[in-house]
Amino acid sequence: MALIVQKYGGTSVGNTDRIKNVARRVAESRARGDSVVVVVSAMSGVTDGLIKLAKDIAPLPSEREMDMLLATGEQQTIALTAIALHTIGVPAVSMTGAQAGIVTDGVHTKAKIHNITPQQVHEKLKAGNVVIVAGFQGETATGQITTLGRGGSDLTAIALAAALKADLCQIYTDVDGVYTTDPRIVPTAKKLAEISYDEMLELASLGAKVMQSRSVEFAKKFGVVFEVRSSLNDNPGTIVKEETKSMEGVVVRGVALDKNQAKVTLVGVPDKPGVAAKIFKALGDATVNVDMIIQNISHGSLQTANSTPTTDISFTADKPDLLKAQKVIEGLKKEVGYREVITAEKIGKLSIVGVGMKSHTGVAGKLFETLANEGVNIDMISTSEIKISVVIDLAKGEQAVKAVHAAFIG
Amino acid sequence: MALIVQKYGGTSVGNTDRIKNVARRVAESRARGDSVVVVVSAMSGVTDGLIKLAKDIAPLPSEREMDMLLATGEQQTIALTAIALHTIGVPAVSMTGAQAGIVTDGVHTKAKIHNITPQQVHEKLKAGNVVIVAGFQGETATGQITTLGRGGSDLTAIALAAALKADLCQIYTDVDGVYTTDPRIVPTAKKLAEISYDEMLELASLGAKVMQSRSVEFAKKFGVVFEVRSSLNDNPGTIVKEETKSMEGVVVRGVALDKNQAKVTLVGVPDKPGVAAKIFKALGDATVNVDMIIQNISHGSLQTANSTPTTDISFTADKPDLLKAQKVIEGLKKEVGYREVITAEKIGKLSIVGVGMKSHTGVAGKLFETLANEGVNIDMISTSEIKISVVIDLAKGEQAVKAVHAAFIG
Repeated sequence: MALIVQKYGGTSVGNTDRIKNVARRVAESRARGDSVVVVVSAMSGVTDGLIKLAKDIAPLPSEREMDMLLATGEQQTIALTAIALHTIGVPAVSMTGAQAGIVTDGVHTKAKIHNITPQQVHEKLKAGNVVIVAGFQGETATGQITTLGRGGSDLTAIALAAALKADLCQIYTDVDGVYTTDPRIVPTAKKLAEISYDEMLELASLGAKVMQSRSVEFAKKFGVVFEVRSSLNDNPGTIVKEETKSMEGVVVRGVALDKNQAKVTLVGVPDKPGVAAKIFKALGDATVNVDMIIQNISHGSLQTANSTPTTDISFTADKPDLLKAQKVIEGLKKEVGYREVITAEKIGKLSIVGVGMKSHTGVAGKLFETLANEGVNIDMISTSEIKISVVIDLAKGEQAVKAVHAAFIG
Repeated sequence: MALIVQKYGGTSVGNTDRIKNVARRVAESRARGDSVVVVVSAMSGVTDGLIKLAKDIAPLPSEREMDMLLATGEQQTIALTAIALHTIGVPAVSMTGAQAGIVTDGVHTKAKIHNITPQQVHEKLKAGNVVIVAGFQGETATGQITTLGRGGSDLTAIALAAALKADLCQIYTDVDGVYTTDPRIVPTAKKLAEISYDEMLELASLGAKVMQSRSVEFAKKFGVVFEVRSSLNDNPGTIVKEETKSMEGVVVRGVALDKNQAKVTLVGVPDKPGVAAKIFKALGDATVNVDMIIQNISHGSLQTANSTPTTDISFTADKPDLLKAQKVIEGLKKEVGYREVITAEKIGKLSIVGVGMKSHTGVAGKLFETLANEGVNIDMISTSEIKISVVIDLAKGEQAVKAVHAAFIG
């Protein structure tokens, strides 16, 4: 008898019919003789509705009170899911994050899990129940309700799987698994049977959107093998696990396009020590999520022998942060002494990811050649051991993805 | 500096504008130098919406899970009310029933308060905060979320007022106070300046709808003087307190109509000892709230000399419990051996209440005569020291109230 943790997101529990559907799936797993812990999100739309109520009252509501408010969304779903299981004869008990023993720090709206003491979960499982745990939430050691921030329900599922030493963790979502690229762009995209944590991390952070990085990082840290699969069919999904020898045979596992980034370039920045630190510390303090950073070689010194050499610094950040980033940079005008700021919103970041890149050469060259053949100009380049990202014109993004996918994957 | 407990019901917090209005009222009390504990209900409509979701899934959802589900309604309101207080510069902290130390028994959906250990409330008050407590809910000693049943938020307020030794408990509602009868039915109905616990109890239990009996009983038991008043104006309300000498001069304090009861009659019940006990014990075990019980004289013995004499037993119960009551009665068919069951939903219970009845005679006769003059047939009668109730046809309920109010009060 295996112990399975199953997580169902907001779309999968979006209305009472879908909740009944989730109950049927859980019952099937249980009928195969497995113990099941279910983690659910708020019904889609519920959290947004609650945020709207709060914003009607105050533009910047207290984070403690937002946690108090938003934690109710998941609490509703666990009760409804338990009721749905009862009607088909499956004993089930719902638990809030606190009841399931999920203890967090006190950073409201983006709490980190400190530890899990799932004593009640164990007891109820032992008594033959399906246990349904509210995702996204926990409680501090002093009994304050907290939420875990974006992607928090995935994190709940993976952390519970680790704490319960579950045999399997299944993340049910509205896609069949992780694809080699977005099937809406490339119809020949293939579903991956398996992928390494590191590849998944790069894809998650690069706009593949299946899961938030922190959940994958947590799974990697605690060695939780999990499967991403659809709640709407019975197709096997994608298994995410530690890298294996065989994975290295594949050079490029996936191609991702992130349309949600903007680019900021500071032109004519004095090329002296500490300038970059000043800029990116200020951005960090303002919680601007900076992704790529490129600094070109100094060129000012070539022009006049006496002037301080200058350089250009470009970075990308999440599009919604662009305004905030611009404000920060403008505030640094005097202190840093750059010449001008150029921003671009119509950019796309195309990335190829694969652990096989570690042992294969010529991958970058092939990527750049493929893009050149398509007439796609490369604006910025950034690489890691297992990925290459390029910033290109947003308008050519999908065309580029198709060509790159065809070149590397088929 | 006084300590005031203020309770605001679902209508008073029915939307974000009303929540802001509540915050303003609380701020005014605080500006007068008082410490304030606020108890709130779910926003009107929220609880019904949640019940509808649950009933979409199962006709008889688990009571534990209903508590888990419904407790979210009040939790949302406390967060929004705290946010509204913050925006007008008033420090405020929300607390769930559990956080406020409200410990209940484990009877889900109608839990009783065992004790209150409001340590956190004291601490937060001491630090200068308004404390906002979720009404209607508590937690068992083992950490299960419970709800207190109908009128539970009033109970939370009165119990907290007792536990905190508050100087004043104000129950804010959408009416100005307690009236001699429903002003929507009888426009000449008068607001009462004060009323005794016992009169309020009879009125509450008889459908005057201002408050549930248990809250009044609790207040009586612990000597909590409270005021029922409107959250929409500054009119003084009705003070509810121990009976005084002067109250006895009034024969009939109020006329109430309860439209929320149903009647069940067991026809042909064998007239032998222990039968009634069996029936009402079973109903009690199923937590059916039985109100009036009438047993007519035995008549079966007149028909055949050998058979056990039979009788008819009628009782009334809350309409929502009717289905449950019917199930219980059907389950007893063999054991009790009655002939048939007749149910009626279209009934109304009209009552007149007054501590003055103790020392006045002829009240019942005048009531029955008034009803007869209106052509209203009396179906069941039940009396206590300070009230007389009759069950009549629902369709004639309002007409009867008008006539009785005119006859006794004017």
